[in-house]
Amino acid sequence: MAPSRQDCEELDAKDPIGSARERFVLPEGVVYLDGNSLGPLPVALADRLAHVLGQEWGARLVAGWDESGWMEAPRRVGDKIARLIGARPGEVVACDSTTVALTKLLLAALHARPGRRLLLTTTGNFPSDLYAGEGAARLSGRAELRVVEPSALEAELAGGDVAALFLTHVDYRTGEMFDMAGLTAAAHAGGALAVWDLCHSAGAVPLDCGGDGVDLALGCGYKYLNGGPGAPAFLYVRQEHQGVLPNPLPGWLGHADPFAFDGRFAQAADIGGYLTSTPPILGLVALEAGLDTFEGITMADVRAKSVALGELFLAVVGEEAGELVEVASPMDPARRGSQVSLRHRDTRAIVEELIGQGVVGDFRPPDVCRFGFAPLYLTHAEVYDAARLVARVVVAASR
Amino acid sequence: MAPSRQDCEELDAKDPIGSARERFVLPEGVVYLDGNSLGPLPVALADRLAHVLGQEWGARLVAGWDESGWMEAPRRVGDKIARLIGARPGEVVACDSTTVALTKLLLAALHARPGRRLLLTTTGNFPSDLYAGEGAARLSGRAELRVVEPSALEAELAGGDVAALFLTHVDYRTGEMFDMAGLTAAAHAGGALAVWDLCHSAGAVPLDCGGDGVDLALGCGYKYLNGGPGAPAFLYVRQEHQGVLPNPLPGWLGHADPFAFDGRFAQAADIGGYLTSTPPILGLVALEAGLDTFEGITMADVRAKSVALGELFLAVVGEEAGELVEVASPMDPARRGSQVSLRHRDTRAIVEELIGQGVVGDFRPPDVCRFGFAPLYLTHAEVYDAARLVARVVVAASR
Repeated sequence: MAPSRQDCEELDAKDPIGSARERFVLPEGVVYLDGNSLGPLPVALADRLAHVLGQEWGARLVAGWDESGWMEAPRRVGDKIARLIGARPGEVVACDSTTVALTKLLLAALHARPGRRLLLTTTGNFPSDLYAGEGAARLSGRAELRVVEPSALEAELAGGDVAALFLTHVDYRTGEMFDMAGLTAAAHAGGALAVWDLCHSAGAVPLDCGGDGVDLALGCGYKYLNGGPGAPAFLYVRQEHQGVLPNPLPGWLGHADPFAFDGRFAQAADIGGYLTSTPPILGLVALEAGLDTFEGITMADVRAKSVALGELFLAVVGEEAGELVEVASPMDPARRGSQVSLRHRDTRAIVEELIGQGVVGDFRPPDVCRFGFAPLYLTHAEVYDAARLVARVVVAASR
Repeated sequence: MAPSRQDCEELDAKDPIGSARERFVLPEGVVYLDGNSLGPLPVALADRLAHVLGQEWGARLVAGWDESGWMEAPRRVGDKIARLIGARPGEVVACDSTTVALTKLLLAALHARPGRRLLLTTTGNFPSDLYAGEGAARLSGRAELRVVEPSALEAELAGGDVAALFLTHVDYRTGEMFDMAGLTAAAHAGGALAVWDLCHSAGAVPLDCGGDGVDLALGCGYKYLNGGPGAPAFLYVRQEHQGVLPNPLPGWLGHADPFAFDGRFAQAADIGGYLTSTPPILGLVALEAGLDTFEGITMADVRAKSVALGELFLAVVGEEAGELVEVASPMDPARRGSQVSLRHRDTRAIVEELIGQGVVGDFRPPDVCRFGFAPLYLTHAEVYDAARLVARVVVAASR
């Protein structure tokens, strides 16, 4: 039996991370279940941006690069991301956009496996990742993008021609989560590098890039990291690959001594070598404020609440509209990221109706509606209310 | 004879673009001659960012993508840049970083000239541009970066193996300006594409990408465009190349229908096809505020004042310290961008001393100090005062 609203209120009262909700601006009357697309505004950001404008850029002008920590921002922000994805300090930088970052990593992986031809991924991968794979394969002049069903990955890896396996850890449509440790091990057993897209994982599920042996990873800053629309992406390069793998898009910021203005590129031996161009300060400031909403919070706490919210949602919808809607996400929470997706013949209309009534999820073609559960700012009670509304709208749409 | 301070005050009183100074936050007691590195903060930006946080991201959350013009920002901002560089609406988008943008364009140019091997540029080009050339050549698997003195360009172009000539229009060290029309014509005569880096030109000197036949161009948003530290870059793709040249870094935003979530990349046929990833909204908002400081101002007015300020600076420094310092910039203003560079055995110390006394220029190794003249916010009188101080500091450093 699904929990009651009173059960939910009790869970909220003792929620160990419940106070984090105060770190966000959340519009009145809205249950926001789309933080998997764009996280909400951190309360702290307005003051921080005002400081950057008033005390840094406005007051110090170009001296901000030295005096205001701007040059170090990609690494400083990267280290804050490292903590959330199981990486060590000095293994992550914040830079570029998601797709540029992925293209960089795929080209670096191809360079590391000169005798191999395939970039391997799955049919369900996010389209922009597939395009990056196409682009990197074409640029390399020798590689080919191989797109298969998940069940065929291991056989492809065993074939010995895969340079890199690249996967999105949590599927954007269904929320299904791949086994990062197992697939990374399979990639290595087949002689390939493992490149993980953490867009729907970072800040939502515990990750252990270090322990799982991940070679390269990337992710976006604007979903569960709450970095704002079009926030900078991040790159993870395992320490042992740093200085060994080239930066395929070399630029002055990746130079060992950017201010020497050398005529030839000499890549920095550390994570900084994977930077390309001047850091986007306003975007990095916002991303840092987003990351600071995780202060004092462990990913274990985040995950526990995420699972609880997902199960609650499924229980309520299942009880009230179970036969009318298909759950597109795995029912086993261990195989699910921080979202639940539903299928229905009329999903687009259902999402529009829900948004009109203050429950924000989203529609992804052809037939999926997604509900993301960001544990930092959602309460059990509002997820309960949202689930009941979802059920009512599904019932109405099924008549 | 150099003008007097009173002459300068009279010039300021009748300066047709003098009121634009009020559009900027300028710290008290500073003459800012480094807008060629980072433009100052536009007054309007604080309110605009507050609006984006309060009324858009904070209040509307993910709906901002549709409701707040975020999706259109790269094109809308691009069109505002187009006006300043002699391009047509729909030929420019704001996106990526400068070096990523240049790498994209070089790879596209190589694709357009499959039988040719060389990416041609000059020794004095900005190092990051040289690295982008190295990177693009390596990625292509067949091309080679050829770096020559300017005097050797025409002979190389005549050799028939140049895929693209890529030049920075105004030299970052010396302010020397290339002949865009002439060199573009020479590139075309040699069968090459012409790719121009406008980092030190856009917003500083009149440009006519259309009339000069420029194929591809790019530039940064944070110098004379006043877009803030690490502002997004921009790309220009001449209309006739759009949809013909591929986007070498394909991503979802460059797709003809991004929200169809197609598995295969189908490039948008217009300028949008050269976008890669989700637009960086905070950076674009700042860049747009920077561009709006040009409202109602023609590039002809900007240029006339830029030349006047440069000539004034050279006259005063020449009169008071002419024999003690070498002018590293062309004396002919027609061959100079919006900066004047000086050489001295002790340039670094001179720059530090000047900054200590409120005149902000910068040092570029090995021996150049640069003074940029951004006509929107500088007065003749302050440039006069700055030049007199420069002369005094040079005299003291030469003892």
